[in-house]
Amino acid sequence: MDPRLRCEAAFRNDRFRAGTAWEDGLYGGRPTGFAGNGRASHIWKGTGASRETTGEEDNSMNIIRVNMTDLTVKTEAVPEAWRTLGGRALTSTIVAAEVPPTCHPLGPNNKLVFAPGMLSGTPAANSGRMSVGGKSPLTYGIKESNAGGTTAQQFAKLGIQALIIEGRPREEKWYRLHVDRAGVSIHEESAVIGMQNFAVIEEMEKRFGDKVGIMTIGVPGEERLAMANISVKDPDHKIRSHGRGGMGAVMGAKKIKCITVDGTGAGKVDIADPDKFKAAARVFAKALLDHPVSGQGLPTYGTNILVNILHEAGGLPTKNFRYGQCDHHDKISGETMYETIVARKGHPKHGCHAGCLIQCSQVYNDKDGHYLTSGFEYETIWGLGADCLIEDLDDVATCDSIMDDIGVDSIEGVVAMGVVMEAGIIPWGDGKGAIRLLREEVGKATPLGRIIGNGTGSVGQAFGLTRVPVVKNQGIPAYDPRSVKGIGITYATSTMGADHTSGYCIATNILKVGGYVDPLGKEGQVELSRNLQIGTAVIDSTGMCVFVAFPMLDLPECAAALNDMVGARYGIEMDAEKAADLGKRILKLEHEFNLAAGMNHAADRLPEFFSLEQVPPHNAIWDFSDAEIDAFWNF
Amino acid sequence: MDPRLRCEAAFRNDRFRAGTAWEDGLYGGRPTGFAGNGRASHIWKGTGASRETTGEEDNSMNIIRVNMTDLTVKTEAVPEAWRTLGGRALTSTIVAAEVPPTCHPLGPNNKLVFAPGMLSGTPAANSGRMSVGGKSPLTYGIKESNAGGTTAQQFAKLGIQALIIEGRPREEKWYRLHVDRAGVSIHEESAVIGMQNFAVIEEMEKRFGDKVGIMTIGVPGEERLAMANISVKDPDHKIRSHGRGGMGAVMGAKKIKCITVDGTGAGKVDIADPDKFKAAARVFAKALLDHPVSGQGLPTYGTNILVNILHEAGGLPTKNFRYGQCDHHDKISGETMYETIVARKGHPKHGCHAGCLIQCSQVYNDKDGHYLTSGFEYETIWGLGADCLIEDLDDVATCDSIMDDIGVDSIEGVVAMGVVMEAGIIPWGDGKGAIRLLREEVGKATPLGRIIGNGTGSVGQAFGLTRVPVVKNQGIPAYDPRSVKGIGITYATSTMGADHTSGYCIATNILKVGGYVDPLGKEGQVELSRNLQIGTAVIDSTGMCVFVAFPMLDLPECAAALNDMVGARYGIEMDAEKAADLGKRILKLEHEFNLAAGMNHAADRLPEFFSLEQVPPHNAIWDFSDAEIDAFWNF
Repeated sequence: MDPRLRCEAAFRNDRFRAGTAWEDGLYGGRPTGFAGNGRASHIWKGTGASRETTGEEDNSMNIIRVNMTDLTVKTEAVPEAWRTLGGRALTSTIVAAEVPPTCHPLGPNNKLVFAPGMLSGTPAANSGRMSVGGKSPLTYGIKESNAGGTTAQQFAKLGIQALIIEGRPREEKWYRLHVDRAGVSIHEESAVIGMQNFAVIEEMEKRFGDKVGIMTIGVPGEERLAMANISVKDPDHKIRSHGRGGMGAVMGAKKIKCITVDGTGAGKVDIADPDKFKAAARVFAKALLDHPVSGQGLPTYGTNILVNILHEAGGLPTKNFRYGQCDHHDKISGETMYETIVARKGHPKHGCHAGCLIQCSQVYNDKDGHYLTSGFEYETIWGLGADCLIEDLDDVATCDSIMDDIGVDSIEGVVAMGVVMEAGIIPWGDGKGAIRLLREEVGKATPLGRIIGNGTGSVGQAFGLTRVPVVKNQGIPAYDPRSVKGIGITYATSTMGADHTSGYCIATNILKVGGYVDPLGKEGQVELSRNLQIGTAVIDSTGMCVFVAFPMLDLPECAAALNDMVGARYGIEMDAEKAADLGKRILKLEHEFNLAAGMNHAADRLPEFFSLEQVPPHNAIWDFSDAEIDAFWNF
Repeated sequence: MDPRLRCEAAFRNDRFRAGTAWEDGLYGGRPTGFAGNGRASHIWKGTGASRETTGEEDNSMNIIRVNMTDLTVKTEAVPEAWRTLGGRALTSTIVAAEVPPTCHPLGPNNKLVFAPGMLSGTPAANSGRMSVGGKSPLTYGIKESNAGGTTAQQFAKLGIQALIIEGRPREEKWYRLHVDRAGVSIHEESAVIGMQNFAVIEEMEKRFGDKVGIMTIGVPGEERLAMANISVKDPDHKIRSHGRGGMGAVMGAKKIKCITVDGTGAGKVDIADPDKFKAAARVFAKALLDHPVSGQGLPTYGTNILVNILHEAGGLPTKNFRYGQCDHHDKISGETMYETIVARKGHPKHGCHAGCLIQCSQVYNDKDGHYLTSGFEYETIWGLGADCLIEDLDDVATCDSIMDDIGVDSIEGVVAMGVVMEAGIIPWGDGKGAIRLLREEVGKATPLGRIIGNGTGSVGQAFGLTRVPVVKNQGIPAYDPRSVKGIGITYATSTMGADHTSGYCIATNILKVGGYVDPLGKEGQVELSRNLQIGTAVIDSTGMCVFVAFPMLDLPECAAALNDMVGARYGIEMDAEKAADLGKRILKLEHEFNLAAGMNHAADRLPEFFSLEQVPPHNAIWDFSDAEIDAFWNF
């Protein structure tokens, strides 16, 4: 079977047209999924009201505060209001409660909050993601960025519900935090300062053994560039990233080069109702494997399956968002990538954390069969391949590997690179030039590297350009909002800045998961984006990756199983309505933070050029009125 | 008499304590100044309501629209609503009415509006200033920047009430606009592209004779850097600047290198009541000469008289706003400058436009007695001398001359240079380094030059710093807001971003003009700033320089004379109350524009470090609450 056909088969079978869960209003409409177990009243509101739970209390979880001004560590009991929160729900709650919205993101009043998901550390499939929150030095709004890797499950098992890093050292010294069964300790660090990520991992594994969990920043993070990410060692000693929004710069501002995590002797995460949990976990895992996207498409081709799909839909932004299709799409497609990986004896399947069933990652080898990169995502390949017109997938993979190594967001990096080419710094399609800019300029924080390393908006500003694809100063990823209008609403309204994962309307606009909303029409897009953003805020809180939304949207038993796992974990009632309430509450408190930080409705806008220039092949334009966009917040 | 003593005498005699006009509420309280002539109902509201005027109509004024997309020019009659507007009142009215607040400032939907003041072209003293308005690429809010020079009076006499430049060329070509009795024409331009300002002036004077009026941009303007100004030839073929807010980048975005103005055969500005005008003009001129600040202090020492005064007050920001006093203040003071100018046979007095009585400019020669710079202002000297710790006044003068030549705002340039030193790019006090950075990096738009050339906020962002003195991304000038709190309120609330001229509380906090409000207390500062901002919005509309406020605040007959001149010019009634109404209306429409552009109350804040760090010698801190600041807009 031709891989291209295989791809189409995976994404276009009739099941995608049914859209049961979506049409039933899983995320905010008529609640059907996330069925509650009827055992306890929910306490999501954080009012501290007494609970009627019959399950066991989980007394082992703590909040740990590290104050980098005083260099002190404090362990606190989890406030009742936070007891059942994890991931994004917890980081955003803490940031909204404790960070002054107008503070400087690199100053002492910003906080860097790490929180494993609600289900992290449990046997639930795909639950090993950690959320990092704070005020973003890229968007100047609230930020949550989650990633797989090796630390979320360790944190949870070590009883750390949240690690809150506050203050800023008075002296120009660097530090490492060490997390283990004894708690968190602060250590002066000099050996790895100035090193990039892979070297840091190597050095830390030398010191602490190869099982050590690591979160680290490269030189761009040390230099507080706004596209610096926090990189996490994955189970294969490679890198996953808390990519978006510059959380690495916040870590750099707090003078923390890396956090090492030794899970030796860690306990287990308490589960209030183990039997119920086990049953639900089984249903959930089966649904992940059964659904054609999470069980078949993503494991085979990775996210890069999307190149051909978006090209065909006319929504593949090309040459800095000039066109919606890319002539050389076949050279960079998931199908080509799959064949290349197989021919070079790499691995098409690879998980970002223990317990991942989807395995959308891969190991991509170079021409000589040596490891080149992994976690090689559609958005990165789109950005360099289509948006920058680089035709050589190996050049793209090399850039991906460098971005992992130096620790910059590979979405912000590639969107910025499109604007770099727009500015004429290197020619369109110059893969070797992009490699050089990333390694020699961004990686070394030269003046040009600082311009690029501060993101897409920074490049646009420096070179006085107007074709600058950002919302709230965060680069717009991989899907043209004119020809896939649902994602345009997500880009405009997301509290995170332009962020496809925060309300992945591609699912319903293009992949026909959870029903179908015509991508070129305006009808239904605001509601679609709103419902997906509400649902995603919940998923981001569970420690699950966003891809669990595919089976959740199509298979009602999958959403119910996630509800049941959360309910069983904490001994609370959880159903679709309560989940939706939680999602709404998260979005609203994030939105309030952003308003208080200075972003009013005018920040919920796409760049002007999307309203001035049509994009072929559909000659689509961004045509939502301000009032239509602002209606997003009517909930 | 020792010059220092002379300075103190000028600023500290008892007359400053009387504060008659201020205490009588000239600007918004109990109206006393701007007495009306009772001849006609005022039409400031722009309702187009019929007027009962008995004066002659002024039918010769026009609005000229230049469309750079189509390369067309259109002459329009002045709408009745705009008939009595000029300067800032007119530019802000047009920008608010015609520019979409969320447009890209460098895109086709921004407009660049030139408007001479209401009194420009009349015999009124000090009335030769032109306003330039648009959406700022520095603040992303509304902007008005006014300057003297040679073009405001020519525009007025040529019957141009406003020149509105719209659109953006489709091709990569450069143009020059030519303004003369026949109207405005568009000409392709190549000879001077890539040239800096003095070379452009030389070339244009070769082409059109030495009387030609010129507005031009240097390379930073061509490259659309956000600190690029629009430079204007002054009567001595030197340069004045529409400095703040990057209007030169907007001109560059519209691909206009320069505007040449040939006033040959221009008419006279119609005055409805010549006798009344003449009488009022005489009173006004006498008041300017009588007041110790405008008649004595400024003409002798220029604005740089302020170095010693602010040092003494503890409000002279030093080493990027670390301290309020500068050890080497004597080396850079107005008194030292005066002696140097006299010794080198320069000119302590110099006017920026024909008809200026204050003559606060000067000609500063180098050691060999050759011209080095003019229009050598306190803010520039403060920034390089105290904020950057450059002790050699000749180095400071050389930087000033380069900033004139390359066409960048000398306030934004020097505040940014303080942050450049904070970042460690060059050492503190390195005058030769500053000269090199301005000439070789900013002037040539290298990557580092682009970082600096995009302003203080850009440098802070690029280098991940938190001591970044900006409000609304515009650099904070010359007066520490912690130890002179009135000016802090102006910085926080001004629609223009941090801008001392928009509500010069130094007058009353430090110079005791218009009464006295303790600079270190919070009491009365919001009201002071509000009243001054309202009054200044009016002055900025008349074509007058802001220094006429000194006699206006202290001498009731001066304010009344300005009212009478405006009334007599248009044949309308003008009094203090109507003037205050106009000022309020200007501020409110600017504020509305900024809100719609995305700036809410959180944009009206000083940078966080002013609230975290005390400034010696008073150990003052910025301690206004959000609510206290926001009360500014209660009018």
